[in-house]
This record gives sequence, structure tokens and C-alpha cells, in this order.
Amino acid sequence: MTDRDNALIEALRVKPGEKVRLRDRDPRDKSLFGDEQETKANTASLAKDIDALQDRLYAEGSRALLVILQGTDTSGKDGTIRSVFNATGPLGVSVHAFGPPSKLELAHDYLWRVHAVCPRRGTIGIFNRSHYEDVLIAKVRKFASEETIEQRYEQINAFEKMLVENGTTILKFMLHISKDEQKERLQARLDDPTKHWKFNPGDLEDREHWDDYQEAYETMLHRCSTPWAPWHIIPADRKWVRNAAIANIVKATLERMDPQYPAVSWNPGDFEVR
Amino acid sequence: MTDRDNALIEALRVKPGEKVRLRDRDPRDKSLFGDEQETKANTASLAKDIDALQDRLYAEGSRALLVILQGTDTSGKDGTIRSVFNATGPLGVSVHAFGPPSKLELAHDYLWRVHAVCPRRGTIGIFNRSHYEDVLIAKVRKFASEETIEQRYEQINAFEKMLVENGTTILKFMLHISKDEQKERLQARLDDPTKHWKFNPGDLEDREHWDDYQEAYETMLHRCSTPWAPWHIIPADRKWVRNAAIANIVKATLERMDPQYPAVSWNPGDFEVR
Repeated sequence: MTDRDNALIEALRVKPGEKVRLRDRDPRDKSLFGDEQETKANTASLAKDIDALQDRLYAEGSRALLVILQGTDTSGKDGTIRSVFNATGPLGVSVHAFGPPSKLELAHDYLWRVHAVCPRRGTIGIFNRSHYEDVLIAKVRKFASEETIEQRYEQINAFEKMLVENGTTILKFMLHISKDEQKERLQARLDDPTKHWKFNPGDLEDREHWDDYQEAYETMLHRCSTPWAPWHIIPADRKWVRNAAIANIVKATLERMDPQYPAVSWNPGDFEVR
Repeated sequence: MTDRDNALIEALRVKPGEKVRLRDRDPRDKSLFGDEQETKANTASLAKDIDALQDRLYAEGSRALLVILQGTDTSGKDGTIRSVFNATGPLGVSVHAFGPPSKLELAHDYLWRVHAVCPRRGTIGIFNRSHYEDVLIAKVRKFASEETIEQRYEQINAFEKMLVENGTTILKFMLHISKDEQKERLQARLDDPTKHWKFNPGDLEDREHWDDYQEAYETMLHRCSTPWAPWHIIPADRKWVRNAAIANIVKATLERMDPQYPAVSWNPGDFEVR
């Protein structure tokens, strides 16, 4: 990992126990990167590096990487996946989007459906939303009691610790956008017929709870950024900044994991392919 | 719950933090029960009570009961299920036996396959062996490092706590038999052709590790008997004592849970079935 990687991670990572005030973090911040075009080209190059590292992770077959993306509607979760993982392709990478729980899922604890799709050894799992909805929408819309929400922070920390101790590295990214930027993006979904499918009238209801959501995010970031599974707050009003930040952190993390092609017990010279 | 139920539970339950010496617990102990024939008749009657309580749990549909059975080979895990739950039938009760993990299961953390089959709300789940194998056979046969085993006690406690906080009551029973009794039961499997299918030459290998297993059980009972998911040590050389003890505790637990038929919002008198 380079000094630059370290500085980037240091700037975006929420320290364990840190109290977070989202209004103090500028969603339009681009100070971590230089020229826009250069940064975009670099992100594309990082995506290729991530692909090469993923190939080694897959061959090694003993550890996994879990990337969790959270953010309000229009914050760019899909776009991030497209930008950072498009060079990697689906072999050894799986994306899971978590919508409202089904009847069967509700008949179990809220971590049941999440645990079921955690990445197997050798693969990268990407969560588009996650168990954190159970302390976000569930808190804002009061789907669960305050006491229940309170228990969940500890349950989630213990669950993630177990995953980490069993060979999964976890990276969590909160895509931080401004209320103005969300307005523009929602309007674009109404104006552009090719984006109509992305619009959901429920998004406008959630927008009315903007302040409550920001507060729920702050509590989540404060309570669940742990030494074993840290949260990062990503300035996400500018897509190129968001993509660059996440691509850098994912690549640096895979480099630190340093997956190895397994040694073989035979000598290639002993074989002849006829 | 009656005073007698409380005394029984008190006698068999491992207190949180208690150090356990299995050699101080007599597997042939029958002092908790009176006459054998009377006790057997009472167990059959308890099985019917359990069925009635299960019906209410199913109708209520909001909580679950998880019964975990652990014990060395021939300790009577199948027999216990047959005796205690036979009156209940499969609607709303599911049994999961955990054998050696598959390749897919090994590609995930060891709790993955366990979480997947935890009972849904309204049902009773019975585990014939469980995640505790990962601190028993895995410890004795050194399938995992000491450090890994050490982490698992805490991981299991946190996992079970999460289940309990999300609506599952957990009862754990260790079926405690003597080495002599196991010898007799294994020999019976060799002598009786209708029992040959139950015999596994690997059981003899495990028997050679008897003392190591007893020690692994003691550590497990000490580390994982928690206020939220207690272990019970069941004297299991006498099948009628084993069945009676477990039937009593399961029934007392369901009574304490006190599941209720849900209230309906309509009046039966308002309907006429033609």
C-alpha cells in the first residue's frame, strides 16, 4: 500500500468510536484527487488491477472480500459497482441487492438472509444495501422498537467480527450525497424516459425524512465502524470522485490481502501434452 | 412452571461461568426421578403436552424454539427426538442432523450452514449435533488451530445471543454417557443386523480419543453455557431418565414461553357457513 493510499483511507475512514457529523463532511469534496480526466483514467486502470487481484483471490480459494454499499436513493450504488467492478466480470464476483424482506425472510432473524449470501472463499461479494437497512429504514420508519434497534448495532458488530475471523475481509462504504444533488438526480429520473424504471414514488416519501435518515446514518457510522470492519464516508456528489475513492480503497485492500496462486505439488516439466 | 420443574432445571443446568468436571456427574444417576414405569408413562404424557404447546406456538407465529442435542456416538440423540417429539409430528417441527461439512459448506464460515436452517417463527428446530462440533471434533482432531477454536466460543455465544434477541428460545442438552455404556451400545450395533447401518468404524477411532472428547465437552460447557442459551448435562446411561429429563425441560420452557392463539378481528357469530 502506498503512502497516498494510506492518506486516502485515513481521510475517509471512520475511526472506531468516532462521533460523525455528516454536515461537516462536504459531499462535493474533490480535494483528495487531482485533475478529473486523469483521475477517471486512473480509476479505469485500477479496475483492471482489481480484476488481476481477484483472479489471484479466486485461485487461492481461502479468503473472501465483502464490499458493503449503503446510501440514500440516487447516491450511486449501482454506478459504483459498474465503475469499480466492471473489468472484473461475474466469475468470482457476486452482487446482492437487498430489497424489502419477503415473508420467508421475515420469519427469521434479519441477518438470516444476509448470512445466506455472504461470499464463499475465493470470491468478492458486493452488497447493494445490506443488514444496515435494519438500523436505517427500520429506525426512521419505526419498523422496530428503539430497544430492538439498539441491540442490532451490537449484533451486527459481532456478526461481522465472526465473518472476519473466519476469513472474510469487510469494507463498508457510505455514499454521501447532498439533498440538492438528490433533487437533481430524482428529477432526471422523471425527465428521462430511459430512467423512468429507476423512479419509485416511495423515494419521495423517504426524501421527506431526509434529516432523520442523516441522523440514523450518523449513529450507524458511530456504532458500527469497528477495527475489523470499518466504515468509509465517500463524498458522492461527483461520480468520478466517488468511483476513484472506492476503487483506490478496494485495490489497496486486495493488495494488502496479497492473495497467492497456490503452489502445486508437481513439476510442469514432468508432463507432455500430446 | 412447577417447583419440581425448577428443581430439575436447577440440578441439570450449567451456571454461566461454572467449571464442569464430567467425572463428578454420574451418567447412571436416576435420583431426579421415581419409579421407572411411572416416569415412562409421564414422559409419554409430557410428549402430548409438548404437542399441544407446539400447536399454540405455530398459531402464534412470532417466536421459535431451538433444541440442540450434543453427545458422543451412541449417546441417544435420535432416541431422544423419537421419545420427546414423536407426539408432535413434523408440522412445525424440523430436525437437522449435521454431518461432515460439504465442500460448499467449507467454503463459508462454519456458522453459515447452521444459520441457514435455524427455525423460522412459529416452529421448533431440533439440531442433532450442531455448530458445537466445531469446538469438539475440530478441537480433538485438530481440524482448526487452538486460536481459531478459542475464537469460536465467543462467536457462538454472540450468534446465539442474536438468535435469542430476535425471538428464538434456545435449549442445549449434552447427553452424558459413560465409556462402559458406550461399549455396550457399540457392541449391540455389531451384534444386531438391524443395527448394522448405525455402526461406523470411525466411531471406534473417536472412542480412542474418549478423554480428549470429555475435556473438549467440559470446556464447551464452561465457555458456552450463557444466561441466554444454557447448557444442561443429561445423565444418559438410562434412556428413560434421559427422555424424562429432556421432556420435562422442553415442556417447562414452552409453558414459560406461553404462546397464544392470535386474536382475530372478526366475530365468529357474524358468519354463517352454508
